[in-house]
This record gives sequence, C-alpha cells and structure tokens, in this order.
Amino acid sequence: MANTKQQFEEHVIIAGVGLIGGSIAAAIRQRFPDTKVTGIGRDLNRLKEAKSANLLTDFATELTDDILKTPATVVICLPVHLIANFARNTAAIASADTLITDAGSVKSAICQCVAADPNAAALFVGAHPIAGGEQAGFEHSDPDLFVDNVCVITHCERQPNNQELQDRAIRFWESIGCTITLMTPEQHDQVLALTSHLPHIMAAVTTSVVGPQNLAMTGSGFRDTTRIAAGSPSLWKEILLGNTAEVISAISQAENILRQYRTALQNGNSNEIENLLVAAAECRSGLGRE
Amino acid sequence: MANTKQQFEEHVIIAGVGLIGGSIAAAIRQRFPDTKVTGIGRDLNRLKEAKSANLLTDFATELTDDILKTPATVVICLPVHLIANFARNTAAIASADTLITDAGSVKSAICQCVAADPNAAALFVGAHPIAGGEQAGFEHSDPDLFVDNVCVITHCERQPNNQELQDRAIRFWESIGCTITLMTPEQHDQVLALTSHLPHIMAAVTTSVVGPQNLAMTGSGFRDTTRIAAGSPSLWKEILLGNTAEVISAISQAENILRQYRTALQNGNSNEIENLLVAAAECRSGLGRE
Repeated sequence: MANTKQQFEEHVIIAGVGLIGGSIAAAIRQRFPDTKVTGIGRDLNRLKEAKSANLLTDFATELTDDILKTPATVVICLPVHLIANFARNTAAIASADTLITDAGSVKSAICQCVAADPNAAALFVGAHPIAGGEQAGFEHSDPDLFVDNVCVITHCERQPNNQELQDRAIRFWESIGCTITLMTPEQHDQVLALTSHLPHIMAAVTTSVVGPQNLAMTGSGFRDTTRIAAGSPSLWKEILLGNTAEVISAISQAENILRQYRTALQNGNSNEIENLLVAAAECRSGLGRE
Repeated sequence: MANTKQQFEEHVIIAGVGLIGGSIAAAIRQRFPDTKVTGIGRDLNRLKEAKSANLLTDFATELTDDILKTPATVVICLPVHLIANFARNTAAIASADTLITDAGSVKSAICQCVAADPNAAALFVGAHPIAGGEQAGFEHSDPDLFVDNVCVITHCERQPNNQELQDRAIRFWESIGCTITLMTPEQHDQVLALTSHLPHIMAAVTTSVVGPQNLAMTGSGFRDTTRIAAGSPSLWKEILLGNTAEVISAISQAENILRQYRTALQNGNSNEIENLLVAAAECRSGLGRE
C-alpha cells in the first residue's frame, strides 16, 4: 500500500445508508468529491433516492466481489446485531487492501465474533463515532455530523495487531471530522453503557411514567429530557441486548441514586437533597448547554 | 372594578426579577408599553440593570403600601418556599383592588398557607406558567416565553370562591400568551411531579451516574437528556421538598419501570425490552421533536 490516504479516498462503501451512513457519505462527498461512494442497502428505491440526493455515486443491494475488486474502505452502518456477520461476509470476498470498519454502538460482541474469523480479523477495525440523532433516514444526513465529535477506535486484543490498518481507520474517521479516542471494546462498552445506553433508558422510563395522558402538561425540560426516547425501539433493543452486563450495571447505579433521592425525601432530609442536586448540577455544568 | 383588563394593565408588580419574572416583565413591556412595571428584589444593582434593560419602569427592594396604593397585579416569582409568606405580607397592606398571583412550580402547600390568612385568601389566585429554562437571571428573559404554553390556574377550595378575581388572573396570564388550564392545587402537584419534578431528578441521576470522568464520551443524547440537571439546586430542592408525597410516588413509578428493564435484560427477554421501548417511543412521538 503506497499511500493509504489515497486508497481510502478512492472508494468508500457504506453498508446501511441511514442517518449515520448517509452522514458519512455526505461528509465524504463534500470533502473528497473525487471519491467513489457506493451505498449498499436492501431497498433499491431508497438507494436511488440517496444517489439523487448526491450522497452516493453508486449503489447495490448486495456487496459483491465485483464491487470490492478495487481497494476500498467498507463502513458498516447496520444495526449492531448485523455488523459482525456483514464484516465476515465482506472479508470472505475482499482483497487484502480492504479496510472494514463500522459505526456500531456496542463493540465487545462484534470484536469477539469478528476475531473468530481470521479473514475478518485481518481487515476489521471497530469504530464508534459518538454522534447521531433520533431522526432516522438519510434525509437527515449532515456532512458535519462528526466534526469535533469523538470517534472511539477499538483495539481488540483477540485480533492480530496491525498498526497500519488501525492507522488507516484513524485517518478515515479523522478525515470526516472526528477526534479519535483509542479504547478496548470492553472499555468502550462500559463507558457507553453509562453515557449513551443508560440515558436512553432513563428517557424512556421518564416518558412511560408521564404517559400520553399528561403530555399536554409537559414543558421544555421534559421535551429535552425525553427527546431520545422517540428513537427506534428495534435499533435500541439490539444495542441494549448487545451490551447486557454493562447496561444492567448502569441501571443498578441509577436505581441506587434514585433510591437516595426517595429516601432523602421520605426523611425530609433537605441537606441530602441539596447535596445530590449540587453534585449533578456541578457535573452537568462541565458540559455547557450545547 | 369597572374594567379589570385596564386595571391589571395599569400596574404590574413583579416580585423576583429572574428568568420568569424578567420574562413576564418583557412580555408586558412589549405588549402593553403604557403599563407600569415595578420590580421588587433584594439586590438594588440587579434591579437597576433590569430597568436599564427596559424590563422595568420602576423598582424597589421592598413592596410597601405606597407602591400598592393604586390598583395593581402582583406576580410573585420567588422560590416556591417564599411565595405564600410574600402573598400574606402583600395582602396585609394591599387594597381590595389588588390581584396577587404567582408562578410557583408547586401549589398545594402555597394554597394551604395562603388560605389560612383571610386577607391573602381574598386576593390570591395561584398560577403556574409551564415555561422556563435552566439559565437563571433576567438576562435570559424572553417576551414570548409563555406564548402557546400552558399556565395552570389553581382553584383552591380552601379560599373563598371569587370568580371575578379568578377571571382577572386568567386574563392576566392570557395577555402574555398563555393557554389556561384550571386545576385544583392537588391535581397540579400530582401531574407536575410526573411531568416536571421527576424529569429533573432523572436528569440529575443520569448525570451523577455518568460522572465528570466520562463527560468527554457523551453525545447529543446525553446532552439533551441531562440539560435541566444544570438548573439551580437550591430552587429545585425547595420544589421537591414542597411536593414531597407526589415526588416520592413519581420516583417509585420510575423505579418500577427501571426494574422492568433490568429484569428483562437479566432474563434476556428481548420481547419485553422491545415492548418497553415501543411504549415509550410511541408516547414520546405524540410530542414531536420540539
């Protein structure tokens, strides 16, 4: 590989052209207009629409060896439970010049499944750009979705150590604006259970407690707090089930703190209520409003 | 009272010129430029600044009988635990032409305390405009903060029934854009425990579980979900303690649903996870994104 930067800019294949896949496509098309961007999806009409929207230069309903015969970067943006198998099927027909990466929100299970297949293990670098929105579909694509957002690149100890491949993945995600953080898949899943999977559950629980009958009495606080609860149940089911142990641990931590609020209220313990609220407010202030 | 509409537009007195008080002032100044708007607060410099910002026409650090000698609407925008006493102190020196209303997030405790004082009970109509933000201070005032938002007007059975006074309060809140909903203080507190007080606690709990060490790994979902956790701990402490029984009940409901998620994950019950997520997503979709 004389120049890996040139290579991945030559042909990017995106499997799953939804919000994330579409935004990757949009970012590549905006930044590297000469790069070929092939979309892979089930629905031919949707792929045609994505090409009409100038997100894709080519598309297909299946990733064939014909499409992979020139060097390419394959970015798998499918629901998390489909990623590992897609990586393995891709690796089975890909040239040694191929980089396979993904955008999945869980990493350990994918790493384990990929590592069990030597072909896939040699070409795959797990990734998770921490960006998105609850609105599905490439119509909501944003070429700057990833700018200044962290992308976790996972170093899976079960896979062969290939620094060149990892560097290529890092350059790919950096090229669309990401800031890279290296972690093991296990570290990723532990942290994301707290920072992403638990917030989704908490938003869903808050929504369910309020119920449709009380929606008219909600304000901007409820709207912000529960916005992500409108996200796709089928996608989120797979994310939660793909990170079960860590999500259970995160829920237990939330239950413990909720119990502290309840007990403090039951005891009329004003100091304890204030301490709990202060700790949260100070932590949240570290992020600012946006 | 020949024309109550004229009367409340003649002089509005706002006790507590923060985000809510400042926004009421801004709304009045924009819609009724001839109305006198007097701000009452502890800090003379802040009041001067609010007048310079054109929110107030007059200000004072104390609400005296001199200020109340012409017909006025007094809007109490203080922290919830200070509202009832301020209403009673105001009623003690106010003329019979005075309307006293408030913007407090809890209502039963205020109603009880006001009702115990015949002077206050004769002049007070409890209100809660469901609008706001987590940014304190009149600098964030918005003259349209209340437009199309619900304002709950409470009908307190402990107070004498005064339809004329209640109508005047309704006209006042409508005049700055609110849509009125009538409730008892108890109904208000029960619903708001779910729609406002619980979401604040859930946002704070989520923030505390994540902790400062993981903030860099959060995305837009976490930011939305926890934005209100940055709100003033001292104000929120009083809100939660002012509605203890209902908040405890709301927390218990949240604990029950959280336990359902945890148990379903522990059992690998994919259907149950999806059912829980679908119920929340369908409910939240009823609100739209904004």
